[in-house]
Amino acid sequence: MDIERIEAAAGRLKGHARVTPLLSSPFLDDIAGRRVLVKAECLQHTGSFKYRGARSAVSALPEDKRKNGVIAYSSGNHAQGVALAARQFGVAAVIVMPSDAPKMKIDNTRALGAEVVLYDRANEDRDAIGTKLSEERGLTLIRPFDEPEVIAGQGTCGLEIAAQAAELGVTEADVIVCCGGGGLTSGIALALEARAPGMRVRPAEPEGFDDVTRSLASGRIEHNASSANGLCDAIVTPQPGNLTFPIMNRLCGPGIVVTDDEAQMAMAQAFSRLKLVAEPGGAVALAAALYHGDQLDGDAVICTISGGNVDRAVFLRALEQFGEG
Amino acid sequence: MDIERIEAAAGRLKGHARVTPLLSSPFLDDIAGRRVLVKAECLQHTGSFKYRGARSAVSALPEDKRKNGVIAYSSGNHAQGVALAARQFGVAAVIVMPSDAPKMKIDNTRALGAEVVLYDRANEDRDAIGTKLSEERGLTLIRPFDEPEVIAGQGTCGLEIAAQAAELGVTEADVIVCCGGGGLTSGIALALEARAPGMRVRPAEPEGFDDVTRSLASGRIEHNASSANGLCDAIVTPQPGNLTFPIMNRLCGPGIVVTDDEAQMAMAQAFSRLKLVAEPGGAVALAAALYHGDQLDGDAVICTISGGNVDRAVFLRALEQFGEG
Repeated sequence: MDIERIEAAAGRLKGHARVTPLLSSPFLDDIAGRRVLVKAECLQHTGSFKYRGARSAVSALPEDKRKNGVIAYSSGNHAQGVALAARQFGVAAVIVMPSDAPKMKIDNTRALGAEVVLYDRANEDRDAIGTKLSEERGLTLIRPFDEPEVIAGQGTCGLEIAAQAAELGVTEADVIVCCGGGGLTSGIALALEARAPGMRVRPAEPEGFDDVTRSLASGRIEHNASSANGLCDAIVTPQPGNLTFPIMNRLCGPGIVVTDDEAQMAMAQAFSRLKLVAEPGGAVALAAALYHGDQLDGDAVICTISGGNVDRAVFLRALEQFGEG
Repeated sequence: MDIERIEAAAGRLKGHARVTPLLSSPFLDDIAGRRVLVKAECLQHTGSFKYRGARSAVSALPEDKRKNGVIAYSSGNHAQGVALAARQFGVAAVIVMPSDAPKMKIDNTRALGAEVVLYDRANEDRDAIGTKLSEERGLTLIRPFDEPEVIAGQGTCGLEIAAQAAELGVTEADVIVCCGGGGLTSGIALALEARAPGMRVRPAEPEGFDDVTRSLASGRIEHNASSANGLCDAIVTPQPGNLTFPIMNRLCGPGIVVTDDEAQMAMAQAFSRLKLVAEPGGAVALAAALYHGDQLDGDAVICTISGGNVDRAVFLRALEQFGEG
């Protein structure tokens, strides 16, 4: 994995992925006690950054492999990204999703033309299901994070952060990234290593699912104790990836762990101050920026809002409990 | 008023106003039965397009006038725009606001450093109050729409629409604009006349406050019967402006009138499909695009979401009543 691969992905994504804005609000600066810049990946196609990696991977397949179709396993955001990318290339997509994924994510994936196969998150192994289906039907498996072309696609978000922050005069900052398996985190870290070496990537995770934070502390891959779903469903993965962890271990950290309440407080701030809809897992980096400033260095912090695919009831509850006014 | 004035405003706004994204969703296309492009001005600084006109007007003042400070009367979005622009130039801002304006808008205006003077919308004349204060204290009045440099500033939104739509291959479309006094509508119309002559601007208004639609139909300035506030507070003005109406009468129409329910349905769609927070008045153009397609021509429609400054309770009610999932 290197910057050339990310640049190549950026070339394939040009005119397809959105260049999402880097937003700010003086009200957020006041809370954080420093300048806060927010990379609004909830505005990406399909409502999360996952479209970048999915389109990168599908577009990198040789035509004779791609035409048989693709398969993915995902709690929802990667699912939608792969479904849309496959549809854009006119090939079939089969998506293996946990049966307890947010309804909006399952519905959207189906609406984007994919065939959805549901599985039980607690008792079944999504990798095994995915591998079996892909062998049976000649589909190419698009892994959600441990796949070089997916990491390269997510890295294009980092290229944009480097360029947009430089335009605002920011070249040194902690860059907090919502972290599940580490695809976005490692991709952004590689991009910034080359394009904004004054920045340092800090993975953010929800309490109870802090496998990356603990892995970075110990220097080896650590697992989450629980395999249950959490409020931050988008970034609940059992452990960092075999490809993503060495990159994160070299370039990122320390991790920052936020509570579910803090994630919901950040959702309420994104609503009132940025006019953005963030899902819980997509709000953990903003929560870290706003409420864990003691763990940050410098006058500016950059954070991703990695997705906005949240069921209405979850959003309403966050606003009712943690909103102002 | 001409395109040169808008280009000059764009020069003054460069590096200050955000270039807001032109967004889309296949789900919205399905509802509308055509391609829908959404200009997300709720992502502008201060949460609405009004910052463009405010910054344009304040930046156009001669230094010796500007240093005495500025004054504005506004239901809230122009207020915040002027407050921020004045703060950026280090000059005082006095804002005359109706006492029934959304609490968020009053609070934000104060937080941006302005002095807020509240008045009774039903029984007092905001123009008279504004003029009196400005004479007493040597402040320059920044009118909310009937002011050439404000219209020019709002017109920069039209320059962006023309360029962004062309990049997506769209050069012919109805462009629906949320319309109060007509500053944004006339500014965009002038910009598109010069830069995208295949586009036609269609003002959108809420039922009961359709003064512009009726004025365009009759060819002369018509008033709203009610001076009460409505759900769509941002775009409730008594009549089109003396400067804006001739421009709209030459370039725009027919107007499209939507119900408050349709505006709230559009807010729910912006939440679930675009991950954007729209205020009721900022959602009327999207409502027209989604639910009044019989009044539109062509394969594509462009609409503004002009602002996102909505009190939490109003937003929650819209999502509870009109959201899905």
